[in-house]
Amino acid sequence: MTATLTSSQSAVASGKQRIFNFGAGPAMLPEPVMQRIQEEFLNFQGIGASVVEISHRSKEFEAVVDRAIASFRELTGVGDDYAVLFVTGGARLQFSAVPMNLIGRSAARKALYVESGVFSALAAKDAAPYGDVEVIASSKAQGFDRIPEIDPERLAEDAAYLHITTNNTVYGTRWNRLPQTGKLVLVGDMTSEILSRTIDFQRFGLFYAGLQKNLGVSGVALVAVRKDLLGSALPCTPPVLNYALLDKSKSMVNTPSTFAIYVTGLVLEWMKEKGGVAAVEKENNQKAELLYAAIDGSSGFYRPVAQPADRSTMNVTFKLPSEELTDQFIKGAAKQGLKFLKGYRDVGGIRASIYNAMPLVGVEALVGYMREFVRSNG
Amino acid sequence: MTATLTSSQSAVASGKQRIFNFGAGPAMLPEPVMQRIQEEFLNFQGIGASVVEISHRSKEFEAVVDRAIASFRELTGVGDDYAVLFVTGGARLQFSAVPMNLIGRSAARKALYVESGVFSALAAKDAAPYGDVEVIASSKAQGFDRIPEIDPERLAEDAAYLHITTNNTVYGTRWNRLPQTGKLVLVGDMTSEILSRTIDFQRFGLFYAGLQKNLGVSGVALVAVRKDLLGSALPCTPPVLNYALLDKSKSMVNTPSTFAIYVTGLVLEWMKEKGGVAAVEKENNQKAELLYAAIDGSSGFYRPVAQPADRSTMNVTFKLPSEELTDQFIKGAAKQGLKFLKGYRDVGGIRASIYNAMPLVGVEALVGYMREFVRSNG
Repeated sequence: MTATLTSSQSAVASGKQRIFNFGAGPAMLPEPVMQRIQEEFLNFQGIGASVVEISHRSKEFEAVVDRAIASFRELTGVGDDYAVLFVTGGARLQFSAVPMNLIGRSAARKALYVESGVFSALAAKDAAPYGDVEVIASSKAQGFDRIPEIDPERLAEDAAYLHITTNNTVYGTRWNRLPQTGKLVLVGDMTSEILSRTIDFQRFGLFYAGLQKNLGVSGVALVAVRKDLLGSALPCTPPVLNYALLDKSKSMVNTPSTFAIYVTGLVLEWMKEKGGVAAVEKENNQKAELLYAAIDGSSGFYRPVAQPADRSTMNVTFKLPSEELTDQFIKGAAKQGLKFLKGYRDVGGIRASIYNAMPLVGVEALVGYMREFVRSNG
Repeated sequence: MTATLTSSQSAVASGKQRIFNFGAGPAMLPEPVMQRIQEEFLNFQGIGASVVEISHRSKEFEAVVDRAIASFRELTGVGDDYAVLFVTGGARLQFSAVPMNLIGRSAARKALYVESGVFSALAAKDAAPYGDVEVIASSKAQGFDRIPEIDPERLAEDAAYLHITTNNTVYGTRWNRLPQTGKLVLVGDMTSEILSRTIDFQRFGLFYAGLQKNLGVSGVALVAVRKDLLGSALPCTPPVLNYALLDKSKSMVNTPSTFAIYVTGLVLEWMKEKGGVAAVEKENNQKAELLYAAIDGSSGFYRPVAQPADRSTMNVTFKLPSEELTDQFIKGAAKQGLKFLKGYRDVGGIRASIYNAMPLVGVEALVGYMREFVRSNG
């Protein structure tokens, strides 16, 4: 990979009218990555065919997979004690695959879940057919405006794992301090924040993320799982979702989504060129601080959804004084190329998703618009 | 979609050195489709974002899904009594999803399978955890050189379905006459031949195909299933694989592989512009006849793998007098841009996969090379 992945000019700046997509996902991808894909789309590495037109078992494609996984290990620091897998179906299919693969480690087939938002609740629901699923903490009564406290006495040692959603896309909350789980295996759905901040990945027995927010395109998840946890898959586990088989076959129990893996490889290269997770985190903090300052400095015009201690740097959620003003805000923003700001249906208001690929200028444009909107309507 | 999908020049003819990929898949895609993808990759329909960067629930993307499904219905003739679904994971995950969704219709949880090659055997194996799976016919003893005969007495009426693989990629055989199954629901894996020939799709209660041979890129399957067969999914069925839920949500139980659906929509448009299945079949027959004539006219130098009555028009398999000559054949072909001709490891020899997107000139080039190779080595 050459330096071109970070050196290209913004298409917006160069007049190509690229929009800023603040939607929750599929999200914006880094522009240099998009340009690279376009450039080599008909002829990958000079082989006379597209990367999507060659066998997943060709040496050219095997190199793509190997590089992507090596980059992921480099960025996360997880070593060979973890299997790093591309698994079909996005994060939602992992809601089923995680219990299929891990719940059998518990004689009681017990698994613990924390309910901190829409997708964490869904993860618990999808796991229920496979065993005894207990929700040990929830912030539902508080409208999911915070990360719930865990009562340490509920961390049953005979459970196969404790599942948390480290960033809650819908409400814009994040686990800013990971729970202390002792010997209990911690499982994390990191879909909406993976590689957005430095985090001790080794705290997790398994962590996973759909690709379509911070890692690439939709339809596939990346799963990292400690190898000693493998080997207890339930008999109903489809081979394509069996982590042990995926590990043995280098994610190729069947033909994987070759395009998705290829794109993720490029996104990871782009991250490495930017200086890795720490450098990206610095920029993410800067973007989030700008937005939260605009909310907090609006004299109550914009009301934040999430409690300050649990704020996400990826999904920034807030409300306006009325639904009418909310609609007007969204429409006016769209006219300026600031798109898909509408909040999730359960919450309403505004959600600005500012994943790794959202440039600072996009956030600055949004903050400028927010200030102007208060002046006109406050 | 404009006429540009069929009007572009061959890149090989125009000097861009595009190869002919005879591999089993992921396969060549139609060149006009590839060019279209490249052209609009950074800016889909002028919206200022790529098709892979927008929400699957945006009106722009919903239109992509609707058009793809309408095209598929038009090309296959299946009506509203069938659900047409995009399901994650390719055909292999359907080996699990089909029994998960259908085997519960049989009180005895019984399903019947015909073993006609590598993937049909795998389909039966993957189904086994979900019920009583019976292989009622097999051509294994004949080295899978033919489609096995079914003893009508083995068509148990209390079975949920009979599964066949309509085209066997590895051995190059095809069901040229579909079995008479009476009231028993027929299920067909059509991965390596879907939309390559006119077929009475209504004979099937369910048929499916991974996208990466005749329909697009890898990682997803198209599933058409009669709606009256839905509603008996086993409790262990992940929601993402539950056909009834996929039907209700227009294939969006979760974020689907938006790129894969988009590409398939373009491939289906291309097929319609070519004149539909009948027109494509005519060209496929012409291509296959050329190859089989080169085999049959080689005075025994090339030995066909499949029995003549069961020959496939998609995967043409043959052997050379020695492994040494086989290697030499493959290497010499590759030098001329005729790539990935090596047979599957269980069979050896040569396999020329000539799916819908393989142009006639590619087959002509291969036939020319075959004739020249006999002259030099015969």
